[in-house]
Amino acid sequence: MEQKTIRLVIEYVGTNYCGWQFQPNGISIQEVLETCLERITGEKPRVVGSGRTDAGVHAEGQVAHFQTTSRLRGPEFQRALNGILPPDIVIRESSREPASFHARFSQTGKRYRYVILNRSFPSALRRPYVWFLPHPFNLEAMREATRYLVGEHDFASFQAAKSRVQNRVRVLTLLDIQRQDDDLVFVFEGNGFLKHMIRIMVGTLVEVGLGKKTPARMKEILEARDRKKAGRTAPAQGLFLERVYYAKGAREREVSDVNSHD
Amino acid sequence: MEQKTIRLVIEYVGTNYCGWQFQPNGISIQEVLETCLERITGEKPRVVGSGRTDAGVHAEGQVAHFQTTSRLRGPEFQRALNGILPPDIVIRESSREPASFHARFSQTGKRYRYVILNRSFPSALRRPYVWFLPHPFNLEAMREATRYLVGEHDFASFQAAKSRVQNRVRVLTLLDIQRQDDDLVFVFEGNGFLKHMIRIMVGTLVEVGLGKKTPARMKEILEARDRKKAGRTAPAQGLFLERVYYAKGAREREVSDVNSHD
Repeated sequence: MEQKTIRLVIEYVGTNYCGWQFQPNGISIQEVLETCLERITGEKPRVVGSGRTDAGVHAEGQVAHFQTTSRLRGPEFQRALNGILPPDIVIRESSREPASFHARFSQTGKRYRYVILNRSFPSALRRPYVWFLPHPFNLEAMREATRYLVGEHDFASFQAAKSRVQNRVRVLTLLDIQRQDDDLVFVFEGNGFLKHMIRIMVGTLVEVGLGKKTPARMKEILEARDRKKAGRTAPAQGLFLERVYYAKGAREREVSDVNSHD
Repeated sequence: MEQKTIRLVIEYVGTNYCGWQFQPNGISIQEVLETCLERITGEKPRVVGSGRTDAGVHAEGQVAHFQTTSRLRGPEFQRALNGILPPDIVIRESSREPASFHARFSQTGKRYRYVILNRSFPSALRRPYVWFLPHPFNLEAMREATRYLVGEHDFASFQAAKSRVQNRVRVLTLLDIQRQDDDLVFVFEGNGFLKHMIRIMVGTLVEVGLGKKTPARMKEILEARDRKKAGRTAPAQGLFLERVYYAKGAREREVSDVNSHD
């Protein structure tokens, strides 16, 4: 039977999960997807994500792939999965891709958003999706600090202390901070992110915004390559994986009608 | 000791409550507020809302008042309450008002919003706040139907069957439907709303939008004064109490610095 590669674009609320990846304690998004795919296909497909998200982190556009011999066409997996997934995990798209497509190895970058609710009182309705901080921020100082972070750097100071990744060099292509009404919205784009990297950057930028660190301290922190120099790790619930980027060739959606693969 | 009237503007997620008002089964918003106020003031203030919201209905701007002899100034109740309220109930404002202010009797109208998510797949992140309907709608037909509803009418056909309210005449001053990306957003303003009135109107308008009823049927339904003629009651989770209106005189905020009352 023909083996097909299926790509999924996934939205999820991270609140009730231990993160994307299997963990001995707690239920992961990956695990829930595999359980549902087993019910649909009768096979036990391994679901490969573009990368992990931590416990409590949300996704609007996580990407994953799996292999199957199911007769279902690529786009049909969306409805089949949405019919049985728990309501805090939703498939936004499903499509068949060339066998060369790999959710992790084919990706070229990611876009994340971090949201701080910055006013004197919290929000009931948006509570699961923001970090509430009532203090006034110096946005200009925060923006000045971001200039040291953008570019290719060894981000060891912004990596979770327990992480054992050896090559900590990443390219941060965009770090934008905008005030939108009562929100401070951070957008990060880069070719890869270390464990907790964005949340430690946000935690450190918050200290700059509150005047506890000067913008220029960011350069020292970066050069120290020492997690202890940076600020606290911002809480998970303000972080969203917005989008995973792929080179056009990797998916070939623009080249031909993707449904012709099915 | 001096008796003071305190006004609250309250945001809440209705999901985990049996509604605004005390119920034998389940916890109400009103009850939670009174329990927290007892802890703050040592008194047992009765919290009077502008009106009820049903189980599962959300609020961005519910208004309530209570009487107290507490030494706390009006604006200080916001922080005191937010410090001990569960995180799905938030005080957006608190202020001292003239003794004549009454959250229910002084109000002149309300604004509600109902949100339908109208695309082929649901949302994980917005699931508690929308009614997901994937079918294509005829928005023009729905808008035509709304013309029969706006104005002063006996809305008996749009009242929960079990309700025993005798005077069902209300003035609906605004009923607007807009498409905003994947959402259909309904805005209702009026001088008062019967139990389930908005949810039955939304359920009936949905049937018009799906072609199951003609726009002109809305006139017949209204004139029949019979709940059985209208459509189904739309689910609670798409409904938000946005704002309660008061005549300027009722609050006198524009006349003098409200803090001078404290």
